[in-house]
Amino acid sequence: MTYRLESDSLGSIRIPADALWGAHTARALDNFPISGIPVSRYPGLVVALAQVKRAAARANSSLGVLNPAVANAISRACRDIEEGHHHQHFCVDMIQGGAGTSTNMNANEVIANLALETMGHPRGNYQHLHPIDHVNKCQSTNDVYPTAIKLALITAVQELDHELGLLTESMREKGVAFAHVAKIGRTQLQDAVPMTLGQEFGAFAATIEEDRCRLRESAALMLECSLGATAIGTGITAEPGYRERVIETLAEIAGLPLVPAADLLEATSDVGVFMHVSGILKRSAIKISKISSDLRLLSSGPQNGFGEIQLPPRQAGSSIMPGKVNPVIPETLNQIAFAIAGADTTVTMAADNGQLQLNAFEPVIAHALLQGFSWLTKGARILRTHCIQGITANEELLGGRAAGSAGLATALIPTLGYAAAAEVANKALTGRVTVIDAVTSMGLMERDAAALILGGASTRGR
Amino acid sequence: MTYRLESDSLGSIRIPADALWGAHTARALDNFPISGIPVSRYPGLVVALAQVKRAAARANSSLGVLNPAVANAISRACRDIEEGHHHQHFCVDMIQGGAGTSTNMNANEVIANLALETMGHPRGNYQHLHPIDHVNKCQSTNDVYPTAIKLALITAVQELDHELGLLTESMREKGVAFAHVAKIGRTQLQDAVPMTLGQEFGAFAATIEEDRCRLRESAALMLECSLGATAIGTGITAEPGYRERVIETLAEIAGLPLVPAADLLEATSDVGVFMHVSGILKRSAIKISKISSDLRLLSSGPQNGFGEIQLPPRQAGSSIMPGKVNPVIPETLNQIAFAIAGADTTVTMAADNGQLQLNAFEPVIAHALLQGFSWLTKGARILRTHCIQGITANEELLGGRAAGSAGLATALIPTLGYAAAAEVANKALTGRVTVIDAVTSMGLMERDAAALILGGASTRGR
Amino acid sequence: MTYRLESDSLGSIRIPADALWGAHTARALDNFPISGIPVSRYPGLVVALAQVKRAAARANSSLGVLNPAVANAISRACRDIEEGHHHQHFCVDMIQGGAGTSTNMNANEVIANLALETMGHPRGNYQHLHPIDHVNKCQSTNDVYPTAIKLALITAVQELDHELGLLTESMREKGVAFAHVAKIGRTQLQDAVPMTLGQEFGAFAATIEEDRCRLRESAALMLECSLGATAIGTGITAEPGYRERVIETLAEIAGLPLVPAADLLEATSDVGVFMHVSGILKRSAIKISKISSDLRLLSSGPQNGFGEIQLPPRQAGSSIMPGKVNPVIPETLNQIAFAIAGADTTVTMAADNGQLQLNAFEPVIAHALLQGFSWLTKGARILRTHCIQGITANEELLGGRAAGSAGLATALIPTLGYAAAAEVANKALTGRVTVIDAVTSMGLMERDAAALILGGASTRGR
Amino acid sequence: MTYRLESDSLGSIRIPADALWGAHTARALDNFPISGIPVSRYPGLVVALAQVKRAAARANSSLGVLNPAVANAISRACRDIEEGHHHQHFCVDMIQGGAGTSTNMNANEVIANLALETMGHPRGNYQHLHPIDHVNKCQSTNDVYPTAIKLALITAVQELDHELGLLTESMREKGVAFAHVAKIGRTQLQDAVPMTLGQEFGAFAATIEEDRCRLRESAALMLECSLGATAIGTGITAEPGYRERVIETLAEIAGLPLVPAADLLEATSDVGVFMHVSGILKRSAIKISKISSDLRLLSSGPQNGFGEIQLPPRQAGSSIMPGKVNPVIPETLNQIAFAIAGADTTVTMAADNGQLQLNAFEPVIAHALLQGFSWLTKGARILRTHCIQGITANEELLGGRAAGSAGLATALIPTLGYAAAAEVANKALTGRVTVIDAVTSMGLMERDAAALILGGASTRGR
Repeated sequence: MTYRLESDSLGSIRIPADALWGAHTARALDNFPISGIPVSRYPGLVVALAQVKRAAARANSSLGVLNPAVANAISRACRDIEEGHHHQHFCVDMIQGGAGTSTNMNANEVIANLALETMGHPRGNYQHLHPIDHVNKCQSTNDVYPTAIKLALITAVQELDHELGLLTESMREKGVAFAHVAKIGRTQLQDAVPMTLGQEFGAFAATIEEDRCRLRESAALMLECSLGATAIGTGITAEPGYRERVIETLAEIAGLPLVPAADLLEATSDVGVFMHVSGILKRSAIKISKISSDLRLLSSGPQNGFGEIQLPPRQAGSSIMPGKVNPVIPETLNQIAFAIAGADTTVTMAADNGQLQLNAFEPVIAHALLQGFSWLTKGARILRTHCIQGITANEELLGGRAAGSAGLATALIPTLGYAAAAEVANKALTGRVTVIDAVTSMGLMERDAAALILGGASTRGR
Repeated sequence: MTYRLESDSLGSIRIPADALWGAHTARALDNFPISGIPVSRYPGLVVALAQVKRAAARANSSLGVLNPAVANAISRACRDIEEGHHHQHFCVDMIQGGAGTSTNMNANEVIANLALETMGHPRGNYQHLHPIDHVNKCQSTNDVYPTAIKLALITAVQELDHELGLLTESMREKGVAFAHVAKIGRTQLQDAVPMTLGQEFGAFAATIEEDRCRLRESAALMLECSLGATAIGTGITAEPGYRERVIETLAEIAGLPLVPAADLLEATSDVGVFMHVSGILKRSAIKISKISSDLRLLSSGPQNGFGEIQLPPRQAGSSIMPGKVNPVIPETLNQIAFAIAGADTTVTMAADNGQLQLNAFEPVIAHALLQGFSWLTKGARILRTHCIQGITANEELLGGRAAGSAGLATALIPTLGYAAAAEVANKALTGRVTVIDAVTSMGLMERDAAALILGGASTRGR
Repeated sequence: MTYRLESDSLGSIRIPADALWGAHTARALDNFPISGIPVSRYPGLVVALAQVKRAAARANSSLGVLNPAVANAISRACRDIEEGHHHQHFCVDMIQGGAGTSTNMNANEVIANLALETMGHPRGNYQHLHPIDHVNKCQSTNDVYPTAIKLALITAVQELDHELGLLTESMREKGVAFAHVAKIGRTQLQDAVPMTLGQEFGAFAATIEEDRCRLRESAALMLECSLGATAIGTGITAEPGYRERVIETLAEIAGLPLVPAADLLEATSDVGVFMHVSGILKRSAIKISKISSDLRLLSSGPQNGFGEIQLPPRQAGSSIMPGKVNPVIPETLNQIAFAIAGADTTVTMAADNGQLQLNAFEPVIAHALLQGFSWLTKGARILRTHCIQGITANEELLGGRAAGSAGLATALIPTLGYAAAAEVANKALTGRVTVIDAVTSMGLMERDAAALILGGASTRGR
Repeated sequence: MTYRLESDSLGSIRIPADALWGAHTARALDNFPISGIPVSRYPGLVVALAQVKRAAARANSSLGVLNPAVANAISRACRDIEEGHHHQHFCVDMIQGGAGTSTNMNANEVIANLALETMGHPRGNYQHLHPIDHVNKCQSTNDVYPTAIKLALITAVQELDHELGLLTESMREKGVAFAHVAKIGRTQLQDAVPMTLGQEFGAFAATIEEDRCRLRESAALMLECSLGATAIGTGITAEPGYRERVIETLAEIAGLPLVPAADLLEATSDVGVFMHVSGILKRSAIKISKISSDLRLLSSGPQNGFGEIQLPPRQAGSSIMPGKVNPVIPETLNQIAFAIAGADTTVTMAADNGQLQLNAFEPVIAHALLQGFSWLTKGARILRTHCIQGITANEELLGGRAAGSAGLATALIPTLGYAAAAEVANKALTGRVTVIDAVTSMGLMERDAAALILGGASTRGR
């Protein structure tokens, strides 16, 4: 391999000749050999970094503090990156000390070298276009990095929201398809009162739909932008007017109605919005986990379980038990939820440990959240395509059970009172007769009157 | 002690003669001797239960399914409880199985016996007015209990919001008082660039103020009411028209714009809103914990720490070290936050374990949240009265440090570029001279030009 | 109320005349009105504090640095407390800043005033016997408080271990009682292969038994004692020889083989052992939670669930559904586990936030652990007495299901290979015939040979 | 690309011609496109799977139930894998449903195809050597998968233990190097009493050393082996004698004193040991996080912080502030700890959700633990090489501060009593004089006597 030499405040260092990154990135590669998960694992973050740098270059140029030729070269480099051409050069580890400085410098260096090329200069000749003095102009890691994370998370929220929309739709379709399938609802795993299988899937759809609202609300909170704050929020080194200009420009580039943060000191040190998004993500994941557990319960069997529905078989279930088909897709979603709940603990601890004017632990927050969104989005997709869409109901079995359920006695309470209805339920259960037979044989009601009440027991509820 | 005999489906049981509760409560006392924390520990929950029961009685009466005299007696009993007269009879343990049935029955029994008294009947003579058939009419634990928890939480949110408002104000006052105190901001615990102590406290105020918005938004989500859902959301046993009437009445009694849940099946089984509120509560607590840690750092010393501010001494700090005064109030807030973060894990697990048509684990959710709100509200109060209000600044020390800080060199970047500014900073630090002396002695700038830039370094930022 | 005046470094303060505590406690009551949970809620902690103070008095007396009369008075006061006579005077809130100083001073003051009484002096006349100079002699909160917590936790471990022993025994008894009840085991909620209900309960017993070992091992780690370390581990103010003497004496008083900590600096700042105990407690709780969930699954029904066993009814299950009996005891244990898992997060964050020579957050650690042990011990008791002991099996149903299970086909794999066995299973399932009928009708085996294999399928496994 | 056709119970499926895996793996790749983290990310797990399969083949051969030629081919294939030649074919996603079946089948298929090659058969010709009938003989995912995880974790523990040993040594060396550097210890961030910087680093070493013991103890718990349990612990399909033989053989292959699990039913369903290991891993991580926070505090500055030590600069600290050097390595360790604490929540939830005879969520447990060990091992290495080894002390500054500290007054308590010592401390602090000057000027002690006491104040403590 051939190398070029670069230098920083710690001295000179060899850089592979074909690397777009430079000295700061090289130090970071040496310093943080932890997770093997490079920044490029999250393309949304790479794109967001490039968008921020492009917005800054344009703002600086329009304010007259950056040479237009330099600004144009930077912009062109950023656009290249946004189009996905150089992601592999964003190679520093997601788990890094330094509050994201290495990620920001990785971006500055890649952009600088790409821009140098378009200007006809070799890589590393930073006297023409410098990663810090030009690409990072009027910026600090402390405003660039969280801004890029927020943009990446907004994209992640949109992708999850879209996927949850499709999931909801597939649940709603099952709700319609199963609208006529009567069954006995359960509370605390004990037989309760009649309902339909359609209502059950309809409730799944409704509960995920609610989370889509929460997700979109959380994305809106991330539109607050701290660019112009620089190091700690006092705007030191930023040109007057830069703040308004860069946010305006970034809003246009990203197609988002960004708003300037009200208190830049606060905006620089606070990670409340990441805790918020983490909580909402966890809420969505846990709801889907609960639904997945329900699907596993309802499909338990085939001979010794609830046996109400059948999940589409996805793979041979067992290396030892022939014919066994397991609920592997819902199980995957449970595990994704456990991982996301764990990541929320991670985010909480990182937030709590922030000190004074900056939270140094944003890198692990970024990783925790971006990973969680990625996993849940993919999980929601397989839940829909590999599971929900193929679910069938054991209608015959459910019909028989519903008709014979002692839980129907609840419907008699308004007429007979709790105590008498309890006796009916008991007689039905122990005598293995239907509730209508029990209540009429006990002489408590006429069959017609009872039929009227019991027949309507499952038709309400929306 | 004297007793009366009551009975339920498990047989008869002795009840202390002066107890307002009955058989179901007695079973629960025997079944759940866990935490020693009775429902009455959370007065807001007791009041909310009474409000729900009163609304139900009025709705049932107006629908003609409850004798007006009975309804009136129930209403009077509920009002008595709302006024705080019988809280001690709400004695079942907060940590209970049964999805809250014991708490609901505790309320039904206390109200029934109070109502019986006003009707001139002895306690336990339920043939005149029955805990289930009358007090619980058209209801189920599964709609009453979560409704009462939500009402109690709305009150808890309001109390915390109020206390955080006062806390914010006290921080803002310090922000004004310290507006002229220059200091060096820190990122990653390393000296960064100039700011004022006033900006620091202003940012504290701003970040808590944001959480007040989030808290109020979360309270709004709890206005969705599932009364009328009864057991699983199908409304079984509820009179037609009851649902609209009871929510309307409860809204009037509680003074809250309640809205009916859109999907009663979903509303009965889902605890998403409790996860949401838990996340917001955690966010507030963690932010206050971060601020508390900052206060402890800034007041560290007196001789070997940051020594920027002094917290008011609250107690002799040590049983061994004379003269030591410790930051006991911020330390308390840290611990409250750790407890609340833990409780969020509890809520998450409880939510995840919900099954099918009901989440049986609402009792531990209710306890976790009500305790968290109570602790943080009290903690915010002592943070304000016992700490923030009495903080003083070591102005002289801070002024000297700010003037001598090498961090001022950052302000020279737009003029000199990063590399030259770094050399200035280095010279200032190693030569123990001021930045202005360094930059002029190096011949990089005229003293007047430098003074202009350096003098303005801390005046921006909002 | 009448008062006496006391004073400390912050000035004078009024103390209720009948209070055994003094000025430091009064400050703490004012400073920490958070949880309403006084130290006396954990009697084991009160006793442990008295034991430590008695050991210190005896050690100091024997070293000649404490007047024997004073030492005796202190010892007598401590013994009184150990016998449970004055617990209500340990009134400071468990959630407190100051690293436990308030709890230590509460103990010092109560003991001093009790001792003063036995010497014939009025309360508060500390010139004769002083809370700090005499009761706290050679001590610091920083060695006394964690030592007392450890002693209290050892007691808590012993109590839980004892209760788990009884629980294990009751499970083992059921294992024997159900040894002959064949059933189909389940993996991933899908029917797997034959086993007995006795094996299921035997496995419950075995898994809890393992945790008893882990609990006892964790208790052993708490025998390491840091007394003599005083403020930060350098032993400042402690008399030479004190350290050995006080640990020896405390070992005798507490009846425990205490050992001196190897590195006192480390022992003073480290809370690793509390994290350890918290992890073990969580492990036990989660195991019991898993078993509780299993019990709820196995008893699900009565008509639409697994229906394998019946839990003893403990209370009417529903305020609306007559005849419903819910698994309220296992549900309680689930919730205890969720609370303990949350508390482990609390302990983790408290541990992580320790700084330099001391962890200031031991109070919330102590509360989290002592509460967790208390709840789980009580929970294990009700699980045994209110649930396990009364469980019955639906033998008939289970027998029929086991005989008809397609899962028996697994036993044919060694003879037929996986693919052919899978065909047999499939035929049994879809044709609703027994495995033995399927395999013989397919001509794959003689009935006798098949019967031999299939008959033995559930008899192995230990 | 060219393909071959394979089939399983769901039908036929195309397999890339050069893939060593087959139909089951292909299904899994389609089913679980979640994390992008293949099994091969954890080489220890791949090796462990091969070791288990080799042991089974040898055991089966020696019991006469596997053709020796087939057994030999399997063994050779396994050894190839153990040597690292085919890791890339272990490609199923770590996050998978099905309780690890896909990982087990991935192994079975890769081994079968490798073995077929050595026997001269083309890939996929399983009639000669079958992934299930031969490679998986006498096994189930349910005993193979947890056994492999345990072996992989034992290796992971050993690697971490080794790295922590080196870390401890480097801390101990600094303890020796700084043994003469007096400083003031701090409790609750407030100045306390004298100690040496050497004691501080010595305590770091001691506390990590303790965790090495805990880690080794936890590894010992994983020696319990459930091979022979097959599907649920009853040993169905396993040849008599297989269990003893396979464990004995695996012990020899792995070089570990494995012991058979006492209760196979329990061993199959229980994941207690994984919770245990997770707790111990978390404890180690949190301790290192606490130390990392201490290092960041002690090196805070350079002008406005504690300034006691200097960490070696690892990279330019800031993209904006010249000359700033940040504690990037300790910050990395903090974040690793937060991730591991989060993973412990994940493990807890996975453990809690186990049902009946199996925990279906072992895949996410395996990932959480193996990732945590990997990150902490790498983190411990950079903490040693990039940080601890290069730390220097600001001796002059520390010496001056120690001599002038008011905290020295604590040493006077045994002589003067608490109250008088407090007055001395106060005078020293407010009058800015040394304690020895204060105590002699107040006429409380002769200078010689005071010097004797004060001079020895920091020399004790071990």
